[in-house]
Amino acid sequence: MLPVLTDLDHFRSLLSQAPAVDLGALAAAEQRNGQLTKPPGALARLEQLAIWYGGWRQTGRPVIESPQVVIFAGNHGVCEQGVSAFPPEVTAQMVGNFEHGGAAINQLAALAGARLDVQALCLDHPTKDFTQGAALDEAGLMAALQAGWGSVDPASDLLVVGEMGIGNTTSAAALAHALFGGEAADWTGRGTGVDDAGLENKTRVVREGVALHQSAIQDGLDALRCLGGREIVAMAGAIAAARMLRIPVILDGFICCAAAACLAQTADGALDHCIAGHQSAENAHAALLAKLGKEPLLSLGLRLGEGSGAALAIQILKGAVVCHSGMATFAEAGVSDG
Amino acid sequence: MLPVLTDLDHFRSLLSQAPAVDLGALAAAEQRNGQLTKPPGALARLEQLAIWYGGWRQTGRPVIESPQVVIFAGNHGVCEQGVSAFPPEVTAQMVGNFEHGGAAINQLAALAGARLDVQALCLDHPTKDFTQGAALDEAGLMAALQAGWGSVDPASDLLVVGEMGIGNTTSAAALAHALFGGEAADWTGRGTGVDDAGLENKTRVVREGVALHQSAIQDGLDALRCLGGREIVAMAGAIAAARMLRIPVILDGFICCAAAACLAQTADGALDHCIAGHQSAENAHAALLAKLGKEPLLSLGLRLGEGSGAALAIQILKGAVVCHSGMATFAEAGVSDG
Repeated sequence: MLPVLTDLDHFRSLLSQAPAVDLGALAAAEQRNGQLTKPPGALARLEQLAIWYGGWRQTGRPVIESPQVVIFAGNHGVCEQGVSAFPPEVTAQMVGNFEHGGAAINQLAALAGARLDVQALCLDHPTKDFTQGAALDEAGLMAALQAGWGSVDPASDLLVVGEMGIGNTTSAAALAHALFGGEAADWTGRGTGVDDAGLENKTRVVREGVALHQSAIQDGLDALRCLGGREIVAMAGAIAAARMLRIPVILDGFICCAAAACLAQTADGALDHCIAGHQSAENAHAALLAKLGKEPLLSLGLRLGEGSGAALAIQILKGAVVCHSGMATFAEAGVSDG
Repeated sequence: MLPVLTDLDHFRSLLSQAPAVDLGALAAAEQRNGQLTKPPGALARLEQLAIWYGGWRQTGRPVIESPQVVIFAGNHGVCEQGVSAFPPEVTAQMVGNFEHGGAAINQLAALAGARLDVQALCLDHPTKDFTQGAALDEAGLMAALQAGWGSVDPASDLLVVGEMGIGNTTSAAALAHALFGGEAADWTGRGTGVDDAGLENKTRVVREGVALHQSAIQDGLDALRCLGGREIVAMAGAIAAARMLRIPVILDGFICCAAAACLAQTADGALDHCIAGHQSAENAHAALLAKLGKEPLLSLGLRLGEGSGAALAIQILKGAVVCHSGMATFAEAGVSDG
């Protein structure tokens, strides 16, 4: 079990002391990979994935048996600025849909054999409109961070975090703009589908929000307090908890990566246990992945959220791991190795 | 059950009368897609896949329950020209590995819930070295075509065909060069890993083989007879049989696509029931996919053969279909549709 977080400095301290990949297991996995019945390198990215996964799971012959998908939902005061094509009520309606098994992520989690948990975070209390003040106070930030931190099942062996929150591509764009600079337009996209005028308005909101808070933002946790939604904060907490538990993470789309970027901008190497599952169609996701140094496994144009792209990518990682751990070696199979 | 093939003209005639996609089912699937609880188009390529799959399976709400993977193995006389990094004995050794469950495709087929069948085609009788004469006579061509044609389980609902055959990237390169022109070097790659001198020699072999047979090649079936290996011919036969049975096909790498290209160059639209699963690292696969007009689902650098890339892509198509058929509609879930 992980300790309950006491305050932000406690969290920063845990992040900075997080466990690293197991170099012995990494070497054992690399050695096994070289003996399998295939031409050297013929499984390419799958080989790298299996070795990386084994390193984090501390074994040269890993299995994936218990993936977990956690969906966090939150509401955003910045919706008052008219940034979304959908009304805020849809957040709670979609939580109901998750709970009744009707959403895309329910189907994809079941297909991947993953446990699915849903956490609705204070939907009746949206964050403050970040063009008017900080989205969260420190107490609100800690509560959301702890919600994510405590949501990870220590018995799971792979984590996907997803989100639902009308308005949250605006929050994610503001986080990316605050962390990585550039212009507001570089980081702002159409989300669930705003039109040209909507995009212009959304870009203005991102620019104004970041301008208001930039001087208060020293690291990713400041950014989360000023500009984040509760579901984004919780995703960051869950990704960090997975690191403490040596549970690899598959990152989802733009919003998930904005949450992850807040960790990366708080402690070096904080995302070493993470891979990118999918490059979404959201405008700035490719640029954000490049900032994180992550190459996506899939690029199918999804822009749904809910952890859907990452859940789909579980299958690819599973494929990598079953090949690595299930294949015969040249010696076992009596095959000439060229 | 499909009729046994009598001769090449019978096969050509069946190909030209093959069933088309069911337009009513396609429309029903499109209508259902528009009602699902997601922003319009948010599942992008997954939506297109599910609709396409439903059209071929003749239902607006399809399922994938019984995928089949068939691996064909053959030996190639052209190996006498020193075109491979591995000795020809490896073909039979790897068939043993498939039969004992030790190869990559065994793990990937099991992960996808797919039945796996293996057909070794006259491994003790390699095709003739195609730089010296036609690889197969018409009887040998028909036997291999029928082997593939008869291998498809009519009760399956998705087909992947894969191959094993030392030397077969040389045969595939020659087929692509004969069918699509250009230079031999455009279509020749390193296969399981030949060095620079090996690649130069392999390119010479492809150039000489195509020069010898070009005048005899009027369509894809002529190309298969002159330049094909038995496993490549059988793959073409299986892909054609799947079409007759309205079983969608996921194409694998360069060799599978060369087999498929022979059908496309024999009858228009012969690959309408096929999607490309994976773009391999083999030099000319991207160009071959472009000739076929197919956009790959995955691009992970695999270059193993065995149907491995396509087997991995089964998971993506399954993801598309479970979302399409399992998600709630806006009305069912009580979610506002924006």
